[in-house]
Amino acid sequence: MVDFKFFVLKGCLRSYFIDLSGNEHTVQFAIEDWWIGDYPAYFTGNKSSLNIECLEDCTLLKVKKENWEQLYKEIPKLESYARIQLERGLASTHQKNIKNHTMSTREKYEDFIASYPKIEQRIKNYHIASYLGITPESLSRIRKNIPVT
Amino acid sequence: MVDFKFFVLKGCLRSYFIDLSGNEHTVQFAIEDWWIGDYPAYFTGNKSSLNIECLEDCTLLKVKKENWEQLYKEIPKLESYARIQLERGLASTHQKNIKNHTMSTREKYEDFIASYPKIEQRIKNYHIASYLGITPESLSRIRKNIPVT
Repeated sequence: MVDFKFFVLKGCLRSYFIDLSGNEHTVQFAIEDWWIGDYPAYFTGNKSSLNIECLEDCTLLKVKKENWEQLYKEIPKLESYARIQLERGLASTHQKNIKNHTMSTREKYEDFIASYPKIEQRIKNYHIASYLGITPESLSRIRKNIPVT
Repeated sequence: MVDFKFFVLKGCLRSYFIDLSGNEHTVQFAIEDWWIGDYPAYFTGNKSSLNIECLEDCTLLKVKKENWEQLYKEIPKLESYARIQLERGLASTHQKNIKNHTMSTREKYEDFIASYPKIEQRIKNYHIASYLGITPESLSRIRKNIPVT
Protein backbone atom coordinates (compact mmCIF):
# COMPACT_ATOMS: atom_id res chain seq x y z
CA MET A 1 0.00 0.00 0.00
CA VAL A 2 1.30 3.45 -0.90
CA ASP A 3 0.17 5.98 1.73
CA PHE A 4 2.75 8.70 1.18
CA LYS A 5 4.09 11.15 -1.39
CA PHE A 6 7.26 13.23 -1.49
CA PHE A 7 7.99 16.95 -1.60
CA VAL A 8 11.45 17.62 -3.07
CA LEU A 9 13.66 19.90 -0.95
CA LYS A 10 16.79 19.06 -2.95
CA GLY A 11 17.60 16.77 -5.85
CA CYS A 12 15.98 15.23 -8.88
CA LEU A 13 13.81 12.10 -9.13
CA ARG A 14 11.66 10.24 -11.59
CA SER A 15 8.75 7.81 -11.42
CA TYR A 16 8.60 5.01 -13.99
CA PHE A 17 7.17 1.61 -14.87
CA ILE A 18 8.41 -1.28 -17.01
CA ASP A 19 6.38 -2.50 -19.98
CA LEU A 20 5.78 -6.03 -21.30
CA SER A 21 8.99 -5.87 -23.37
CA GLY A 22 11.13 -4.79 -20.40
CA ASN A 23 11.38 -1.15 -21.52
CA GLU A 24 11.18 1.63 -18.94
CA HIS A 25 8.54 4.38 -19.28
CA THR A 26 9.27 7.51 -17.25
CA VAL A 27 5.98 9.02 -16.04
CA GLN A 28 7.25 12.10 -14.20
CA PHE A 29 10.41 13.99 -13.28
CA ALA A 30 10.57 16.13 -10.13
CA ILE A 31 13.08 18.73 -8.88
CA GLU A 32 13.07 21.21 -6.00
CA ASP A 33 9.58 22.35 -4.87
CA TRP A 34 7.79 19.63 -6.87
CA TRP A 35 5.77 16.72 -5.55
CA ILE A 36 6.30 13.16 -6.72
CA GLY A 37 4.62 9.89 -5.80
CA ASP A 38 3.00 6.72 -7.02
CA TYR A 39 -0.27 8.58 -7.59
CA PRO A 40 -2.34 5.73 -9.06
CA ALA A 41 -1.65 3.71 -5.89
CA TYR A 42 -1.72 6.68 -3.49
CA PHE A 43 -5.13 7.91 -4.64
CA THR A 44 -6.88 4.55 -5.05
CA GLY A 45 -5.38 2.32 -2.38
CA ASN A 46 -4.48 -0.16 -5.10
CA LYS A 47 -1.11 -1.91 -5.09
CA SER A 48 2.02 -0.02 -6.14
CA SER A 49 2.33 0.51 -9.88
CA LEU A 50 5.29 2.90 -10.21
CA ASN A 51 8.93 2.91 -9.14
CA ILE A 52 10.44 6.12 -7.73
CA GLU A 53 14.15 6.64 -8.40
CA CYS A 54 16.53 9.35 -7.14
CA LEU A 55 18.60 10.63 -10.10
CA GLU A 56 20.73 12.81 -7.77
CA ASP A 57 21.35 12.88 -4.01
CA CYS A 58 17.96 13.95 -2.67
CA THR A 59 16.50 15.57 0.43
CA LEU A 60 12.77 14.83 0.58
CA LEU A 61 9.80 15.48 2.81
CA LYS A 62 7.81 12.25 3.05
CA VAL A 63 4.19 13.18 3.75
CA LYS A 64 1.78 10.48 4.87
CA LYS A 65 -1.74 10.43 3.43
CA GLU A 66 -3.38 10.43 6.89
CA ASN A 67 -1.43 13.59 7.83
CA TRP A 68 -2.41 15.23 4.57
CA GLU A 69 -6.07 14.32 5.15
CA GLN A 70 -5.83 15.78 8.65
CA LEU A 71 -4.43 19.02 7.20
CA TYR A 72 -7.46 19.27 4.87
CA LYS A 73 -9.69 19.25 7.97
CA GLU A 74 -7.58 21.80 9.85
CA ILE A 75 -6.92 24.14 6.90
CA PRO A 76 -9.90 24.04 4.49
CA LYS A 77 -8.10 26.40 2.09
CA LEU A 78 -5.62 23.61 1.45
CA GLU A 79 -8.45 21.85 -0.42
CA SER A 80 -8.36 24.66 -2.95
CA TYR A 81 -4.56 24.40 -3.33
CA ALA A 82 -4.80 20.62 -3.80
CA ARG A 83 -7.69 20.94 -6.22
CA ILE A 84 -5.77 23.37 -8.45
CA GLN A 85 -2.60 21.20 -8.31
CA LEU A 86 -4.69 18.18 -9.30
CA GLU A 87 -6.36 20.06 -12.15
CA ARG A 88 -2.91 20.92 -13.53
CA GLY A 89 -1.72 17.34 -13.00
CA LEU A 90 -4.74 15.88 -14.78
CA ALA A 91 -4.45 18.32 -17.69
CA SER A 92 -0.73 17.64 -17.99
CA THR A 93 -1.23 13.86 -17.98
CA HIS A 94 -3.88 14.09 -20.71
CA GLN A 95 -1.75 16.50 -22.73
CA LYS A 96 1.27 14.19 -22.56
CA ASN A 97 -0.84 11.34 -23.94
CA ILE A 98 -2.24 13.51 -26.74
CA LYS A 99 1.18 14.94 -27.63
CA ASN A 100 2.64 11.45 -27.66
CA HIS A 101 0.31 10.55 -30.55
CA THR A 102 0.07 13.86 -32.38
CA MET A 103 3.62 15.27 -32.32
CA SER A 104 6.67 14.24 -34.31
CA THR A 105 9.72 13.02 -32.38
CA ARG A 106 11.40 16.41 -32.83
CA GLU A 107 8.29 18.30 -31.70
CA LYS A 108 8.07 16.13 -28.57
CA TYR A 109 11.65 16.99 -27.63
CA GLU A 110 11.24 20.71 -28.36
CA ASP A 111 8.05 20.73 -26.30
CA PHE A 112 9.87 19.00 -23.45
CA ILE A 113 12.74 21.50 -23.28
CA ALA A 114 10.28 24.40 -23.56
CA SER A 115 8.11 22.98 -20.77
CA TYR A 116 10.91 21.85 -18.45
CA PRO A 117 13.94 24.08 -19.14
CA LYS A 118 15.39 23.66 -15.64
CA ILE A 119 15.18 19.88 -15.72
CA GLU A 120 16.68 18.95 -19.06
CA GLN A 121 20.33 19.64 -18.13
CA ARG A 122 20.09 17.43 -15.03
CA ILE A 123 18.75 14.29 -16.66
CA LYS A 124 20.50 11.59 -18.67
CA ASN A 125 19.67 11.13 -22.33
CA TYR A 126 18.06 7.71 -21.90
CA HIS A 127 15.79 8.93 -19.11
CA ILE A 128 14.51 11.79 -21.26
CA ALA A 129 14.03 9.32 -24.12
CA SER A 130 12.03 7.01 -21.82
CA TYR A 131 9.81 10.00 -20.90
CA LEU A 132 9.23 10.96 -24.52
CA GLY A 133 8.62 7.37 -25.66
CA ILE A 134 11.47 7.46 -28.18
CA THR A 135 14.80 5.62 -28.41
CA PRO A 136 17.98 7.19 -26.93
CA GLU A 137 19.46 7.05 -30.45
CA SER A 138 16.59 9.14 -31.87
CA LEU A 139 17.02 11.65 -29.07
CA SER A 140 20.79 11.92 -29.70
CA ARG A 141 20.17 12.60 -33.38
CA ILE A 142 17.63 15.33 -32.55
CA ARG A 143 19.89 16.96 -29.95
CA LYS A 144 22.79 17.12 -32.44
CA ASN A 145 20.56 18.88 -34.98
CA ILE A 146 19.07 21.48 -32.65
CA PRO A 147 21.20 24.66 -32.58
CA VAL A 148 22.28 25.96 -29.15
CA THR A 149 20.39 29.20 -28.43
CA MET B 1 -11.25 28.50 -25.38
CA VAL B 2 -13.03 25.71 -23.50
CA ASP B 3 -14.72 27.17 -20.40
CA PHE B 4 -17.34 24.48 -19.77
CA LYS B 5 -17.82 20.82 -18.98
CA PHE B 6 -20.86 18.55 -19.15
CA PHE B 7 -22.79 16.53 -16.59
CA VAL B 8 -24.70 13.68 -18.25
CA LEU B 9 -28.41 13.50 -17.36
CA LYS B 10 -29.16 11.01 -20.15
CA GLY B 11 -27.15 9.38 -22.91
CA CYS B 12 -23.65 8.25 -23.69
CA LEU B 13 -20.69 10.28 -24.98
CA ARG B 14 -17.00 9.98 -25.65
CA SER B 15 -14.04 12.37 -25.89
CA TYR B 16 -11.36 11.60 -28.47
CA PHE B 17 -8.47 12.96 -30.51
CA ILE B 18 -6.99 12.02 -33.89
CA ASP B 19 -3.32 10.96 -34.16
CA LEU B 20 -0.74 11.71 -36.85
CA SER B 21 -1.91 8.69 -38.88
CA GLY B 22 -5.57 9.75 -38.78
CA ASN B 23 -6.58 7.15 -36.19
CA GLU B 24 -9.03 8.06 -33.43
CA HIS B 25 -8.03 7.65 -29.76
CA THR B 26 -10.96 7.61 -27.34
CA VAL B 27 -9.90 9.22 -24.06
CA GLN B 28 -13.09 8.84 -22.03
CA PHE B 29 -16.63 7.50 -22.18
CA ALA B 30 -19.42 8.99 -20.06
CA ILE B 31 -22.95 7.86 -19.22
CA GLU B 32 -25.61 9.10 -16.77
CA ASP B 33 -24.20 10.86 -13.67
CA TRP B 34 -20.70 11.19 -15.14
CA TRP B 35 -18.85 14.33 -16.11
CA ILE B 36 -17.13 14.77 -19.45
CA GLY B 37 -15.15 17.61 -20.98
CA ASP B 38 -12.02 18.67 -22.79
CA TYR B 39 -10.12 18.68 -19.50
CA PRO B 40 -6.65 19.60 -20.85
CA ALA B 41 -8.15 22.77 -22.38
CA TYR B 42 -10.67 23.41 -19.57
CA PHE B 43 -8.06 23.29 -16.80
CA THR B 44 -5.24 25.14 -18.57
CA GLY B 45 -6.96 27.69 -20.80
CA ASN B 46 -5.03 26.25 -23.75
CA LYS B 47 -6.77 25.67 -27.07
CA SER B 48 -9.15 22.75 -27.53
CA SER B 49 -7.43 19.38 -27.84
CA LEU B 50 -10.31 16.88 -27.67
CA ASN B 51 -13.54 16.29 -29.58
CA ILE B 52 -16.70 15.41 -27.65
CA GLU B 53 -19.19 13.16 -29.47
CA CYS B 54 -22.70 12.03 -28.45
CA LEU B 55 -22.99 8.27 -29.08
CA GLU B 56 -26.71 8.32 -28.17
CA ASP B 57 -29.35 11.06 -27.89
CA CYS B 58 -28.13 13.03 -24.88
CA THR B 59 -29.50 15.39 -22.26
CA LEU B 60 -26.63 17.32 -20.70
CA LEU B 61 -26.02 20.01 -18.12
CA LYS B 62 -23.46 22.43 -19.53
CA VAL B 63 -21.64 24.02 -16.60
CA LYS B 64 -19.48 27.07 -17.21
CA LYS B 65 -16.13 27.33 -15.45
CA GLU B 66 -16.92 30.74 -13.95
CA ASN B 67 -20.13 29.34 -12.40
CA TRP B 68 -18.24 26.39 -11.04
CA GLU B 69 -15.56 28.70 -9.57
CA GLN B 70 -18.33 30.78 -7.98
CA LEU B 71 -19.80 27.63 -6.42
CA TYR B 72 -16.40 26.86 -4.86
CA LYS B 73 -16.56 30.24 -3.11
CA GLU B 74 -20.16 29.81 -1.97
CA ILE B 75 -19.88 26.14 -0.94
CA PRO B 76 -16.34 25.45 0.32
CA LYS B 77 -17.17 21.75 0.82
CA LEU B 78 -17.47 21.49 -2.93
CA GLU B 79 -13.68 21.87 -3.04
CA SER B 80 -13.41 18.56 -1.21
CA TYR B 81 -15.81 16.85 -3.65
CA ALA B 82 -13.86 18.24 -6.62
CA ARG B 83 -10.52 17.29 -5.09
CA ILE B 84 -11.60 13.66 -4.60
CA GLN B 85 -13.07 13.47 -8.13
CA LEU B 86 -9.81 14.85 -9.52
CA GLU B 87 -7.73 12.39 -7.48
CA ARG B 88 -9.74 9.54 -8.99
CA GLY B 89 -9.45 11.05 -12.46
CA LEU B 90 -5.69 11.47 -12.18
CA ALA B 91 -5.20 7.95 -10.84
CA SER B 92 -7.42 6.51 -13.57
CA THR B 93 -5.57 8.41 -16.33
CA HIS B 94 -2.19 7.17 -15.06
CA GLN B 95 -3.52 3.62 -14.67
CA LYS B 96 -4.85 3.58 -18.23
CA ASN B 97 -1.41 4.57 -19.52
CA ILE B 98 0.34 1.91 -17.42
CA LYS B 99 -2.18 -0.80 -18.36
CA ASN B 100 -1.81 0.15 -22.01
CA HIS B 101 1.86 -0.86 -21.85
CA THR B 102 1.77 -3.70 -19.34
CA MET B 103 -1.36 -5.69 -20.22
CA SER B 104 -1.99 -8.03 -23.12
CA THR B 105 -4.79 -7.17 -25.55
CA ARG B 106 -7.08 -9.71 -23.88
CA GLU B 107 -6.28 -8.39 -20.38
CA LYS B 108 -7.05 -4.83 -21.50
CA TYR B 109 -10.50 -5.88 -22.72
CA GLU B 110 -11.26 -7.96 -19.61
CA ASP B 111 -10.16 -5.03 -17.45
CA PHE B 112 -12.43 -2.69 -19.43
CA ILE B 113 -15.57 -4.80 -19.03
CA ALA B 114 -14.81 -5.34 -15.34
CA SER B 115 -14.29 -1.59 -14.80
CA TYR B 116 -17.18 -0.34 -16.95
CA PRO B 117 -19.82 -3.10 -17.00
CA LYS B 118 -22.71 -0.67 -17.64
CA ILE B 119 -21.02 1.02 -20.56
CA GLU B 120 -19.80 -1.85 -22.69
CA GLN B 121 -23.21 -2.85 -24.10
CA ARG B 122 -23.94 0.71 -25.24
CA ILE B 123 -20.79 1.31 -27.25
CA LYS B 124 -19.82 0.17 -30.73
CA ASN B 125 -16.94 -2.22 -31.20
CA TYR B 126 -14.68 0.27 -32.95
CA HIS B 127 -15.14 2.89 -30.24
CA ILE B 128 -14.12 0.40 -27.54
CA ALA B 129 -11.15 -0.61 -29.71
CA SER B 130 -10.11 3.05 -30.05
CA TYR B 131 -10.26 3.36 -26.24
CA LEU B 132 -8.15 0.24 -25.71
CA GLY B 133 -5.62 1.16 -28.41
CA ILE B 134 -6.25 -2.03 -30.38
CA THR B 135 -7.78 -2.74 -33.80
CA PRO B 136 -11.52 -3.51 -34.12
CA GLU B 137 -10.50 -6.87 -35.65
CA SER B 138 -8.45 -7.79 -32.54
CA LEU B 139 -11.38 -6.82 -30.33
CA SER B 140 -13.81 -8.94 -32.38
CA ARG B 141 -11.52 -11.98 -32.04
CA ILE B 142 -11.27 -11.49 -28.27
CA ARG B 143 -15.03 -11.01 -27.85
CA LYS B 144 -15.74 -14.25 -29.75
CA ASN B 145 -13.38 -16.18 -27.47
CA ILE B 146 -14.69 -14.86 -24.16
CA PRO B 147 -17.51 -17.06 -22.81
CA VAL B 148 -20.75 -15.32 -21.84
CA THR B 149 -21.15 -15.52 -18.05
